[in-house]
Amino acid sequence: MPRKVYLDDIPLAEAWQKLARALEEVGLWQPLGEEELPLTSALGRVTARPVYARVSSPHYHGSAMDGYAVRAVETATASDGAPVRLALGGGQTQAKYVDTGDPVPAWADAVIPIENVQIIEEGQATFIEIRSSVTPRQHVRLLGEDLVTTELVLPANHALRPVDLGAIAAGGHAAVWVRRKPRVAVIPTGTELVALGTPLKPGDILEYNSIVLAAQVEQWGGAATRWPIVPDDRPRLEAVVAEAAAGHDLVLLNAGSSAGAEDYSALVVQTLGQLLVHGIAVRPGHPVILGLLGKPGAARVPIIGVPGFPVSAAITGDLFVEPLLAKWLGRAPAAPPVLEAVMTRKVFSPPGDDEYVRVTVGEVGDRVVATPLSRGAGVITSLTRADGVALIPRQSEGLEAGDRIQVRLMRPADEIRRTIVAIGSHDLTLDLIAQFLAEKGARLSSANVGSQAGLVALRRREAHLAGSHLLDPETGDYNRSYVKKYLPDTPVTLVTLVGRQQGLLVRQGNPLDLRSLADLARPEVRFVNRQRGAGTRVLLDYELCNLGLAASAVRGYEYEEYTHLAVAAAVASGMADAGLGIAAAAQALELDFVPLFVERYDLVIPQVHYESPRLRPLLDLLHDERFRREVAALPGYDVQPMGTLVAL
Amino acid sequence: MPRKVYLDDIPLAEAWQKLARALEEVGLWQPLGEEELPLTSALGRVTARPVYARVSSPHYHGSAMDGYAVRAVETATASDGAPVRLALGGGQTQAKYVDTGDPVPAWADAVIPIENVQIIEEGQATFIEIRSSVTPRQHVRLLGEDLVTTELVLPANHALRPVDLGAIAAGGHAAVWVRRKPRVAVIPTGTELVALGTPLKPGDILEYNSIVLAAQVEQWGGAATRWPIVPDDRPRLEAVVAEAAAGHDLVLLNAGSSAGAEDYSALVVQTLGQLLVHGIAVRPGHPVILGLLGKPGAARVPIIGVPGFPVSAAITGDLFVEPLLAKWLGRAPAAPPVLEAVMTRKVFSPPGDDEYVRVTVGEVGDRVVATPLSRGAGVITSLTRADGVALIPRQSEGLEAGDRIQVRLMRPADEIRRTIVAIGSHDLTLDLIAQFLAEKGARLSSANVGSQAGLVALRRREAHLAGSHLLDPETGDYNRSYVKKYLPDTPVTLVTLVGRQQGLLVRQGNPLDLRSLADLARPEVRFVNRQRGAGTRVLLDYELCNLGLAASAVRGYEYEEYTHLAVAAAVASGMADAGLGIAAAAQALELDFVPLFVERYDLVIPQVHYESPRLRPLLDLLHDERFRREVAALPGYDVQPMGTLVAL
Repeated sequence: MPRKVYLDDIPLAEAWQKLARALEEVGLWQPLGEEELPLTSALGRVTARPVYARVSSPHYHGSAMDGYAVRAVETATASDGAPVRLALGGGQTQAKYVDTGDPVPAWADAVIPIENVQIIEEGQATFIEIRSSVTPRQHVRLLGEDLVTTELVLPANHALRPVDLGAIAAGGHAAVWVRRKPRVAVIPTGTELVALGTPLKPGDILEYNSIVLAAQVEQWGGAATRWPIVPDDRPRLEAVVAEAAAGHDLVLLNAGSSAGAEDYSALVVQTLGQLLVHGIAVRPGHPVILGLLGKPGAARVPIIGVPGFPVSAAITGDLFVEPLLAKWLGRAPAAPPVLEAVMTRKVFSPPGDDEYVRVTVGEVGDRVVATPLSRGAGVITSLTRADGVALIPRQSEGLEAGDRIQVRLMRPADEIRRTIVAIGSHDLTLDLIAQFLAEKGARLSSANVGSQAGLVALRRREAHLAGSHLLDPETGDYNRSYVKKYLPDTPVTLVTLVGRQQGLLVRQGNPLDLRSLADLARPEVRFVNRQRGAGTRVLLDYELCNLGLAASAVRGYEYEEYTHLAVAAAVASGMADAGLGIAAAAQALELDFVPLFVERYDLVIPQVHYESPRLRPLLDLLHDERFRREVAALPGYDVQPMGTLVAL
Repeated sequence: MPRKVYLDDIPLAEAWQKLARALEEVGLWQPLGEEELPLTSALGRVTARPVYARVSSPHYHGSAMDGYAVRAVETATASDGAPVRLALGGGQTQAKYVDTGDPVPAWADAVIPIENVQIIEEGQATFIEIRSSVTPRQHVRLLGEDLVTTELVLPANHALRPVDLGAIAAGGHAAVWVRRKPRVAVIPTGTELVALGTPLKPGDILEYNSIVLAAQVEQWGGAATRWPIVPDDRPRLEAVVAEAAAGHDLVLLNAGSSAGAEDYSALVVQTLGQLLVHGIAVRPGHPVILGLLGKPGAARVPIIGVPGFPVSAAITGDLFVEPLLAKWLGRAPAAPPVLEAVMTRKVFSPPGDDEYVRVTVGEVGDRVVATPLSRGAGVITSLTRADGVALIPRQSEGLEAGDRIQVRLMRPADEIRRTIVAIGSHDLTLDLIAQFLAEKGARLSSANVGSQAGLVALRRREAHLAGSHLLDPETGDYNRSYVKKYLPDTPVTLVTLVGRQQGLLVRQGNPLDLRSLADLARPEVRFVNRQRGAGTRVLLDYELCNLGLAASAVRGYEYEEYTHLAVAAAVASGMADAGLGIAAAAQALELDFVPLFVERYDLVIPQVHYESPRLRPLLDLLHDERFRREVAALPGYDVQPMGTLVAL
């Protein structure tokens, strides 16, 4: 029978305090060693010592112009009325031609630009004639103008940029002392894990956290070694961890960090060293282990037990690995840019835990809005889709819609400025739009919440546009009446994106022989529905009503999914027998499609955004031949009406 | 006689237009090729194709909890009053233990968490007993929760972050198609250039632009090949450029891009291809060459003739190489973060040229201020010291003090927030402070403008503190009366940094046998002075006055330098015979030092900054034993009074 031990979650700051104190005691809470690198290999590395100039730059008095080096005192009387002649070469040289950068001769102290000089030849002798005086040091680039010997070029603890390499070279160095890269072992463990490329069977979990963790380490200036997957076998795990500790500065053990029957990480740490922390009050991410491998007197190596859910793993990297590497490299911890935004949704968060909520961020009109994404610790796309992360501190019970929050950005702020925010109905065309926009340097962020919720989002000024296919049961027309109802005071443009088929998604061969909506009432048929407010749901309700069928007659009516693909997945996996959706979703998951209806899918765009330069690249796409061809290639799509303005 | 051809400078946008059009004509104004990389090598690379999920994630219905998989329908009646028992195994299994992540058996559709279950053993049979119902799919992580097969994971033209690699892996890929790295040849040319590590003689110029350019290319996602230095020899240069063009996507030829006698770059481009642009209306950087190597019909490779001055070279990288690499990689051009700041000085800029002014940026009180740095194109430290760059567009004649400007930041905004801005007198101790602060994650930005200008800067709220050693001729005391005069209304704290010797800096062996200030009046002695407002200048004037000597009696009195080291450099190079300065500067340049006076060097700190957390790390240093020891080791320094508060 599985044994359960509950973790003793402690606040993040307390966990860090324990770790830092333990590291301090063993001399590891400070920069690691250093190495000398040629400048050509030092980009991005952190200086380990201050760099002082070994030579001055320039290291001689050089001419700052193409011209003639002279003694200033000999030019003192020159004027238009009384030009002065200076001998070029010969017995007593008074002037010498110099190119920019040439040394000024020791006897000279100024340079006359070539354009202020006339050359005079008299017999064997050559002179320059000048009509105005120069002052000492004029047009001379003085020794040390840039750097004087012994001057500080760069302090220690500085991350080297390209121009820094130039300045160090100018100071007479061909190499620089930098912090050595912390060596980090990344060990994936779990009997259920399989390596990328392995054919998958149910229960297998693709192992990719080690790729993410290793890339994080690399990005933060460390050097990662990835281990092959270690099964849940305690002696083997101990052997691998001990081996990793011998050659690395830090061990990341992923996962087995919770307290289940086969979670050996904490036991391994206890056996091989000292368990400092088991569990932190952070979501996602709470089953974190912090420990110190090795026994007093011997070499000590910190170990972090990283939780297995991919979002938890990545956040553990942010919270523990990055600051530790920063300390070891002698640089300040990363401080992602922060943007203030208005929260669009209420988010409940149990007090006691810090919660990191992934959000999309949109600049809509004069507001910056943040919308929460999936909070599941297993949904790694919530991190790739996120524009940033908002922290709900453990003292708080959550956020209200309208709250002003600080979002730590996960992409450059300028990328957010180039982003078009779409909230509304899901259509596969939106993915194609995203891809075409990326080629143009623009970006589409799209949230699939259904057609009606999209119109609500427009009303709340949370999006630039909404995709919508809402059938009006009164008129049989699409979208128009809904736009009037939801956005009565907002000038709006309605542009048709596509016409598309809706039909039943069924397993290959249509084993239950479903032919029409009426078949959904057969008792053995398990249906999967779309959520309330989705255009497809409106369509279903309308057509059920036409047939005189009650919702309760359809088994699974209350089983809701948020996208066509999720409906298709429910059918493909056997969780349901049929769903209503688009042909492309059926094709994607190799389902059969029973076409039933044709509908119009429009983009609803408030006039103010329709006219803004931000939306231009998207609107241009609607008339782009290549784009239209690619949409037309999707099954069940009609691009004929694409780009048509619908009168309101 | 040197032949001069003047360049025909054209505006930046026009130059870019010519380049882009020429590249478009030969099919090079678009992303280059692609290559498939394992995910483990793809960090930071740009996707060349959209990535669609090949498998769903999860790819099966998995348990979201440790617990028991059941049929929801069989739990419907469970309550505290009427618990339900479900058979564990045996003939007709009704419940099966599952760990988090285990597949839910095909016959089950929900999971009951282990803590809601009691195990009952009756004879041979085992049951679970439950007291509440579950709904279908409860605690089931459904197939496709994260990604559904065929769903867009990432669009093309996206720079891969660690979590992106995880999402691609979750979609069933072990590799990803990314843009190949543009190959860039960097060719340094110039007979006067010498490689790093070569002993220097006058006229030699250290070649390090190629290191900066190659590092820029690397940072922007390209792969650079550095060539050995090529002398100014036209046939050889042509051979090298042709060879480089054969294996690269872009050639950077540095320098020889101007129009001097030995500037062959434009001729080489004309011979090997087509000269598009020679000269742009940008400072620093105007002698830029843009061209296309190769003849129509054959392979074409763009070439950029990069100016030789290091600041011009780096800016040419920013203006041309970065956007070109961005285009070839299919990503948006870099958009450095921009910060609005108030200009502290007037800057004149001739109309007709875009000018890039390097500035330091300080957050002082509630203002962000920008102060221009050296504008010399040869001063690479103006780039390393800069916090950002402000553009003076060619329509403008410059900036006024007080103008609000947009600064493109060259370091992270958070680094600027950790920066202490010192403007005032130069002392070598400031370099040590910079270094000690860097270890603590703080930063000192110091501008050497002299003591009085520092007090003016404080009055104008441009700095957090000013170093000052201003002697009051009336009282013989330091700083106090000046603070009262310059900052009558500002509460200020005066803290002593050091006591230090001032004396004459003379060449080794003191060849002119200078013993006192009076010796400066000897006609053969060439003096180098400090600028007006410098404490050392005040001291000089005071002491000359005591001696009854007029300024005009000192030859070189009008020759001004801005730092002790610059004065020392003037003496070391023979440009002057003596200067007044500190012992450490003499030692740095191996000069002799004739001690004359002892003075007090204080830090002047407005109370509001003195009490702010930002200055804490600096004030703590004054009582740091290691810091005091290092200052005491400098010649002529007395650390006894360090940290003493001076009553005002």
